[in-house]
Amino acid sequence: MDPFLAAAIEEAKLGLAEGGIPIGSVVVIDGKIVGRGHNRRVQQGSAVLHAEMDALENAGRLTGADYQRATLYSTLSPCDMCSGASLLYKIPRIIVGENRTFQGPEAYVRSRGVDLQIVDDPECVRLMEEFIAARPELWNEDIGV
Amino acid sequence: MDPFLAAAIEEAKLGLAEGGIPIGSVVVIDGKIVGRGHNRRVQQGSAVLHAEMDALENAGRLTGADYQRATLYSTLSPCDMCSGASLLYKIPRIIVGENRTFQGPEAYVRSRGVDLQIVDDPECVRLMEEFIAARPELWNEDIGV
Repeated sequence: MDPFLAAAIEEAKLGLAEGGIPIGSVVVIDGKIVGRGHNRRVQQGSAVLHAEMDALENAGRLTGADYQRATLYSTLSPCDMCSGASLLYKIPRIIVGENRTFQGPEAYVRSRGVDLQIVDDPECVRLMEEFIAARPELWNEDIGV
Repeated sequence: MDPFLAAAIEEAKLGLAEGGIPIGSVVVIDGKIVGRGHNRRVQQGSAVLHAEMDALENAGRLTGADYQRATLYSTLSPCDMCSGASLLYKIPRIIVGENRTFQGPEAYVRSRGVDLQIVDDPECVRLMEEFIAARPELWNEDIGV
């Protein structure tokens, strides 16, 4: 497996172990992880720290030139907010663990020139399927339903 | 002036007084401000806390039904990230102080059914024009340039 997707899955599992929503993300620049994160809705009472936002926040303040060499990994298809954050910073490549349990605005993101790839990883699917079955109200809150 | 836009401008000025980027935002539900915020890039070293994100974060965890009655005010046209956050939560109305100094994806946001209105307020324009002239590198960082 891609070691960066594996790191995002580790983050998702860490979030689950904390009682949170099991979605993880890493930001990679020049072959190195510069930021890692997971969904913090439960842990921090956060409405904005989806996994990708948490990873971007943990990467710290970067320049446009940094972001333009970055790849964003997420275990789940990025939602409108997280896709928008990638577009803001002109991150050229997004690697998505799975998009069976949720689909963000993938066609729009691609129309803006982003190389968005779906891995369809069974472990990412399993993490979300089990979580959505166990905590549907929390999942709905996370996606504004 | 709309008191909610005035509150967003107060937030922008608070940010400026802290040494930050002068953009402010409030979230309004049922005629009351439920969250207010301003850009925290400088103050918190944050890559994700644009004014709108800060206001949404400070509003706390809300339900989809709450967001679907909300109006998001911002002194400046929301960028891809902040527009995406509004789309995630299906916020139906966005009131924008000005879009002369920066334009987010307004047409796309409207195409998703959002009532996005531009006030073209001179004080909002002045705050940004003066800031961009004084700190162009900081402004470029904030929009990923």
